[in-house]
Amino acid sequence: MASRLVLALDETDPARALDIAKEVSPFVSKIKINYPLVLSAGLDIVTEISKFSKVICDFKVADIPNTNRLITEAVFSAGATGIIAHAFPGPESLKAIRAVDPSKEMYVVITMSHPKGGDFFKIEEFCSLALEVGATGVVAPATRPEDVAKVKNLIGDLEIISPGVGAQGGDPKETIKAGADFIIVGRGIYQADNPALAAEKYMSDMNIDD
Amino acid sequence: MASRLVLALDETDPARALDIAKEVSPFVSKIKINYPLVLSAGLDIVTEISKFSKVICDFKVADIPNTNRLITEAVFSAGATGIIAHAFPGPESLKAIRAVDPSKEMYVVITMSHPKGGDFFKIEEFCSLALEVGATGVVAPATRPEDVAKVKNLIGDLEIISPGVGAQGGDPKETIKAGADFIIVGRGIYQADNPALAAEKYMSDMNIDD
Repeated sequence: MASRLVLALDETDPARALDIAKEVSPFVSKIKINYPLVLSAGLDIVTEISKFSKVICDFKVADIPNTNRLITEAVFSAGATGIIAHAFPGPESLKAIRAVDPSKEMYVVITMSHPKGGDFFKIEEFCSLALEVGATGVVAPATRPEDVAKVKNLIGDLEIISPGVGAQGGDPKETIKAGADFIIVGRGIYQADNPALAAEKYMSDMNIDD
Repeated sequence: MASRLVLALDETDPARALDIAKEVSPFVSKIKINYPLVLSAGLDIVTEISKFSKVICDFKVADIPNTNRLITEAVFSAGATGIIAHAFPGPESLKAIRAVDPSKEMYVVITMSHPKGGDFFKIEEFCSLALEVGATGVVAPATRPEDVAKVKNLIGDLEIISPGVGAQGGDPKETIKAGADFIIVGRGIYQADNPALAAEKYMSDMNIDD
């Protein structure tokens, strides 16, 4: 089967980020990039990495519809295949992203992985919203597998991608059992002595029960 | 009195954005910059503009604490004097921003200006959170002056900055009367034939009743 692993490439040194992306690309399904890297390297880093891997821009877009649209246009023009957005600003903001290019992936954050990160998030309403706006999938935290299971029951066939594995403490197998389709690992790979080896190990561990 | 006007510089052409910023700077208290401009121009545009105006990065930061910290470090290193963040990822995410440099400005979004933009926002809880984490001020929408008044009653001496004037329909004087300290205007200035003249007019109109 295809890898269930997504690399969260939160390394901010551009040259090192690009090296890691290349080494790790055979073992991951996608590479997730966040603003800290883009702010240091420019959006060109998305274009560079998208030459050998699918790239999701985890920009947690959370603005008014017009700004969401402009951010999304920039991201897809640079070569990304997907974008991550917050549900919090409501349906109009998500629809503005979806309308840019419905052939691309849009993931909606249902709740977050850090301590107290989920206190204000409405899992049921945000899952409904994700379905309503035609999201590709949702983001739900591996640090709270019970939330992943709850989300799984609410979103039907939408994909679930789960961050919070490794440094934040989530367990990949438990998260997959709860319903996650893809597991996002960051520091456990990009800070490893041998990122490719670490990625291969994560990938194999995840697939072993299938 | 000092200008109550903040320019939302949502022009995405870097050269034009820089020209407008220069022309308009005598009439504004700060210039607010969002991701679409930074994605096209790079973070250097913040450094350029901060040579002649205070710059707030309206990045509506809404990530886990570590990512919030990295984004904030990048923004302040580039020369910005302030950053705008979302409250909904909770206190830990806001504290991570605040800890980067407490001498800089951190504004917390209490609710949003677009249609259905406030449905999930908890005005009372987010105002408490802004106070708890030591925010400089809060963002509340000129499109709903009743929300600005409500926020004013909840946040004591914190500043209120209000977007949604002009193209989105908010009225500056009504918003100031409701408690706003600064009014953010975007398209009404940067899309005007003469942005400096438009900014001067907005500035004078706002100060006339003082």
